[in-house]
Amino acid sequence: MARYQAILAYDGTGFAGSQRQANKRTVQGEFEAALRRLGWDGRSILLAGRTDTGVHASGQVAAFDLEWRHSPQALAKALNAALPPDLAVRDLWVARQDFHPRFDALSRTYRYRLFCAEVRDPLRERYAWRLWPQLDGKILPALASLWIGTHDFAAFGSPTRPGSGTVRTVLQACWQQEGETWVFEVQADAFLYRMVRRLVYVQAAVAQGRLSAEVIARALQEPAAASSRTGLLPAGLAPACGLTLVQVTYPAEDCNS
Amino acid sequence: MARYQAILAYDGTGFAGSQRQANKRTVQGEFEAALRRLGWDGRSILLAGRTDTGVHASGQVAAFDLEWRHSPQALAKALNAALPPDLAVRDLWVARQDFHPRFDALSRTYRYRLFCAEVRDPLRERYAWRLWPQLDGKILPALASLWIGTHDFAAFGSPTRPGSGTVRTVLQACWQQEGETWVFEVQADAFLYRMVRRLVYVQAAVAQGRLSAEVIARALQEPAAASSRTGLLPAGLAPACGLTLVQVTYPAEDCNS
Repeated sequence: MARYQAILAYDGTGFAGSQRQANKRTVQGEFEAALRRLGWDGRSILLAGRTDTGVHASGQVAAFDLEWRHSPQALAKALNAALPPDLAVRDLWVARQDFHPRFDALSRTYRYRLFCAEVRDPLRERYAWRLWPQLDGKILPALASLWIGTHDFAAFGSPTRPGSGTVRTVLQACWQQEGETWVFEVQADAFLYRMVRRLVYVQAAVAQGRLSAEVIARALQEPAAASSRTGLLPAGLAPACGLTLVQVTYPAEDCNS
Repeated sequence: MARYQAILAYDGTGFAGSQRQANKRTVQGEFEAALRRLGWDGRSILLAGRTDTGVHASGQVAAFDLEWRHSPQALAKALNAALPPDLAVRDLWVARQDFHPRFDALSRTYRYRLFCAEVRDPLRERYAWRLWPQLDGKILPALASLWIGTHDFAAFGSPTRPGSGTVRTVLQACWQQEGETWVFEVQADAFLYRMVRRLVYVQAAVAQGRLSAEVIARALQEPAAASSRTGLLPAGLAPACGLTLVQVTYPAEDCNS
């Protein structure tokens, strides 16, 4: 019996999120079903991050224990043959026996894609948020830099567990333009519930001229005064379709060599 | 009653092609259903190009006659509200009364996307062909130039009507690299049935070292001797998911000013 670490990619459109739920199609549920076809009889796999309904991943990390006589490469192939088309193992290797993808993670990186267009675009809206009216992209890089550092993000998400803290450290945040698309990439030690979609939503509000950038700065300094309940920040979330979990980092000994 | 010209975009994954068919979900069927909700009682809309099951479009052209009292902009909005998420009107204007999107077209442009990866990638395979083993991308630009000009393409597709000719004029053909993705763009006066997917398939075979480039040149010079039935060219088609109809061109008087 060895512990395996796997990098998962999925198109989140057809999943009710990553975590197993009764009577819903989830990433965990589909992955465990595929594992069972290879003889797995565990109770539950471990996942690095919880992704919501409709959120995609190119670098979700899973761990599980399995009795397997062949190579990790053969295991990855066998899993990919058993998994549905919208979920795949991108890489897989033997991990430390006590490796835990969530507790051992040093950081998570998410990417959010949006584009400005007045008219619907069926070929882009599966993986990006269509936004209108036009936003002032020039202001976005300055907004991204506001998030970097250790802040109380209480105004930008909910604790992942009732009563747990709302202080997080954002290691990197930037906006990049790819043609007509704007891509927000943000790396943090961990995120609050729905935090990335909230960060994108308020930045878009500023770039559309509906909110002042000073309000964001103040919401980071005085989170209690600035939460959306008080009306200082507009309530709202960028839609799930634009969001992708792209990477989870670990200490060097837990990476594939 | 005026004739309208519309630019349609669709994600082809959920359509059994563009042309109306009994008991199947098609682009024409969905578009006519939306038009009927706006009072249209015509027999059939006109489409510029026939796209197969699973083929996408960002620039399909439709024409139809409608009694409409408001602006073309308002008609586009009303249609987009009535159309399903995977089909949209990107632009719309009043056309000549006898405008015909197929007969009046000067050229069609298709784009085909492929990428090389050994492992499945759920976030890319909806709009691109995943190919393995690795192909030699350096040879692709030279292959593209072989298609340019007027040739008998009998070895690379079937006549669109029984007994009609197989000579077509390719105006432009090129491969461009976008990161790990290769994009083939080809413009011709018209195409044979499945011609673009066949061109991509044989070029990929050469770039994977399974076919000699000379065979392509010979198949263009002696189409009868080189058809796939004789075994000179490998049978096969690149999958529909990688293909998008991107543009149909018309004389200047039929373009939106």
